[in-house]
Amino acid sequence: MAEKIAFLGLGNLGAPIAQRLINSGFEVTVWNRTISKAEPLAQLGAKVAENAIDAIEPGGIVFSVLADDNAVETTFSDALLQKLGSNGLHISMSTISPDCSRKLTETHNKYGASYVAAPIFARPDAVLSGMGNIVVSGEAGARERAKPLVQNFVKGVFDFGDDPGAANVIKLCGNFMIAASLEMMAEAFTLAEKSGIPRQSIYEMLTSTLFAAPIFQNYGKMVAQHTYEPVLFGLPLGLKDINLTLQASAKVNAPMPLADLVKNRFVSALAKDRAGMDWVALAKGASDDAGL
Amino acid sequence: MAEKIAFLGLGNLGAPIAQRLINSGFEVTVWNRTISKAEPLAQLGAKVAENAIDAIEPGGIVFSVLADDNAVETTFSDALLQKLGSNGLHISMSTISPDCSRKLTETHNKYGASYVAAPIFARPDAVLSGMGNIVVSGEAGARERAKPLVQNFVKGVFDFGDDPGAANVIKLCGNFMIAASLEMMAEAFTLAEKSGIPRQSIYEMLTSTLFAAPIFQNYGKMVAQHTYEPVLFGLPLGLKDINLTLQASAKVNAPMPLADLVKNRFVSALAKDRAGMDWVALAKGASDDAGL
Repeated sequence: MAEKIAFLGLGNLGAPIAQRLINSGFEVTVWNRTISKAEPLAQLGAKVAENAIDAIEPGGIVFSVLADDNAVETTFSDALLQKLGSNGLHISMSTISPDCSRKLTETHNKYGASYVAAPIFARPDAVLSGMGNIVVSGEAGARERAKPLVQNFVKGVFDFGDDPGAANVIKLCGNFMIAASLEMMAEAFTLAEKSGIPRQSIYEMLTSTLFAAPIFQNYGKMVAQHTYEPVLFGLPLGLKDINLTLQASAKVNAPMPLADLVKNRFVSALAKDRAGMDWVALAKGASDDAGL
Repeated sequence: MAEKIAFLGLGNLGAPIAQRLINSGFEVTVWNRTISKAEPLAQLGAKVAENAIDAIEPGGIVFSVLADDNAVETTFSDALLQKLGSNGLHISMSTISPDCSRKLTETHNKYGASYVAAPIFARPDAVLSGMGNIVVSGEAGARERAKPLVQNFVKGVFDFGDDPGAANVIKLCGNFMIAASLEMMAEAFTLAEKSGIPRQSIYEMLTSTLFAAPIFQNYGKMVAQHTYEPVLFGLPLGLKDINLTLQASAKVNAPMPLADLVKNRFVSALAKDRAGMDWVALAKGASDDAGL
């Protein structure tokens, strides 16, 4: 268990994942653009690198949880990939476009390194309790090497085969379905509220019966009670993900009118100065429209 | 357990509910517009009435599971309500408008009878296995008299108070959320399919993790496999319910853009000659749009 790991990106999700790896006994070197975020992990025993490239070991393992396509492409520069080199493995957990994963696989292979797309479904507290789920795709050998590593911090690992973009498609579909669930509950709870029924009552009935799933129980409570803080996944990130979904759907000619609707809810939320709220705040749109 | 019950309406849901009541030991008199549907219940011991009014006992209990507002209002004529009379109780299980329940409460009260709205969430097989859930609302005394009766065929009873329309609002919200879930899965599975991922794979991943709820597991399988028969809840009934939802939302000024989207999916399905399919066939819309 003394395998060395480089961990790039210590945001709301990256930090607890790095923490789980440290607690599992790995030697972890962390890097984050804003270096102060590395401090709590340093206290747990992580080494802190000043640059992404300094965190990497030749032929080693590197996890990344970064903001978007551009951040991953910029960080995984030719210089970094040259250092990672032969037998190096990049486990790429950011929510990025399928095409970005496909392109990164090519640039990694040019230097003998491997790339696995491994986006995670988990809020930060679910990472710490090991209740998240991860989807992986990419070269077979790299997937098999990645699986026991990610099993240190998730409950389920789902394999989507050779296409490195496949896992990203699944992640985008899942996030789209969560956002659509927020809109669905917002509309239903608002109709109930305006009909004289407490939001909490309809929430409790539906999420203890037909919709008894974590998404509806956890997010539904926030929608019912209009709880949009603390920010575990910011509203602008929600818009970023739904834009990636629509971009992927346009690429393969698969119209998604519900994704369009949800996207416009996010855009409207930004127009109403809600960028500082959790993405659940898209649910305020239905209340606004109803004059509440 | 020898209480006498009149049961009006033996469709896909009414028949199994009547069957459960017969099996629970009640003396049940059934009526259906198409009388041949009463035959299997007669073999279980039900009496069969030729007219709704003949099925009723003065001061007795009557269940109804009828097609729409008009069918309930026509069947519960002044003549029938006069016969039902004082101490009579109508347990109204049809999916009808909240306003129809409010109006029926008044006409019932005129003849001394009581009205309870009690729509059920269950497919026919869930009724037979007693796994459904029911929402009740209306006068307090009538609700308390209805509860032990409905507990003969459902798992959960949820009380929404004095407004007889409240239970209907909850039922419409629930059916809207199911229809929206169908659209949501249809769009996500279609994006996956066009990206080279089997529909079955994304279905299995999402419904064993984030969306591990009966609605997604049961309906999702049908969406993944394009199974739109047998018809347990016909597509025109789905459109009827979403129209009732939009009518209720217009009444209280609560815009529901997602309900509008789903309604247009149903309308398009009718345009494509899918009236004979289960309402899950609204999911074909996303595949059509993607040229599949």
